[in-house]
Amino acid sequence: MAEPTGLSHEEAKKHCIPQDPATKDFIMQQTMYRIKDPKRSLEFYTGVLGMTLLQKLDFPPMKFSLYFMGYENPADIPTDPAKHIEWTFSRKATIELTHNWGDEEKADFQYHNGNSEPKGFGHIGLAVPDVDKACERFEQLNVEFVKKPNDGKMKGIAFIKDPDGYWIEIFTPYRLPEII
Amino acid sequence: MAEPTGLSHEEAKKHCIPQDPATKDFIMQQTMYRIKDPKRSLEFYTGVLGMTLLQKLDFPPMKFSLYFMGYENPADIPTDPAKHIEWTFSRKATIELTHNWGDEEKADFQYHNGNSEPKGFGHIGLAVPDVDKACERFEQLNVEFVKKPNDGKMKGIAFIKDPDGYWIEIFTPYRLPEII
Repeated sequence: MAEPTGLSHEEAKKHCIPQDPATKDFIMQQTMYRIKDPKRSLEFYTGVLGMTLLQKLDFPPMKFSLYFMGYENPADIPTDPAKHIEWTFSRKATIELTHNWGDEEKADFQYHNGNSEPKGFGHIGLAVPDVDKACERFEQLNVEFVKKPNDGKMKGIAFIKDPDGYWIEIFTPYRLPEII
Repeated sequence: MAEPTGLSHEEAKKHCIPQDPATKDFIMQQTMYRIKDPKRSLEFYTGVLGMTLLQKLDFPPMKFSLYFMGYENPADIPTDPAKHIEWTFSRKATIELTHNWGDEEKADFQYHNGNSEPKGFGHIGLAVPDVDKACERFEQLNVEFVKKPNDGKMKGIAFIKDPDGYWIEIFTPYRLPEII
């Protein structure tokens, strides 16, 4: 068997279909993953990453809650309950953390972050104005690193872990042309 | 042991930390997962979901390519290579598909979508102007459904599968206050 190669740019373009007008106004709204303990996740996503809790939704018959996190101004959250739901689900790029009640009491229980077998999901990634400053602050806050920005080959790109072990890539866009 | 319950809204608020100004201008930029075959994924993410291939990046020494997908106007893609990279990594809410070269030739190989054991990642979600129309179109395009919008309890919410079996939630924000 020949050594595998990727697609050429020309081949890739051949498999791209121009946007159907029927998909106009679709938005990439959420990325959902499961968390063990909302207390520690709320502290991490707000206090460390600087996101806002956009909305908490409870589903008692199914014993779970959803925590929508995102980079939005808390002052923009509508007070009317119906408007609040419509607003949350209209924001781009939110993180939907699912808490199945009671998981936090299971001593050795841990969700799967997708980066060991069986692999699938990899990470979320945040663009930040200054990756070095951001990572110094993460170190001060005792955040666990998968890769510090000056480790390895791709200097200027870091990976940290959230409280469940999910990976979060940290980078600064204008520095990437020199790195990748 | 008492029946588990979720956090109260008051408890949740106690664990939310006000945004540190050091995190100002952080953006939620990408959600990465691995795909088996970029040809079928490109056709699905462009032709079915209406996204644009923002950028393809190849890493020959490590034998993988990245395909950044998102809802952006193709006319906005910079022609200068460095500006192009900076632009891609500055867009909010992109999907980063990782292709490890040769995966497409492994007959029974499949990535793990996170919704069977071991669980973790759940799905991405798209807000669309009309969930029923969007799903009728998906049916015409032979998209595989996990849940059609009128199945089950939460009518008006659908889940489809991408070519690797990753779940994609489909909903219309203004209809959700009546559903959830």
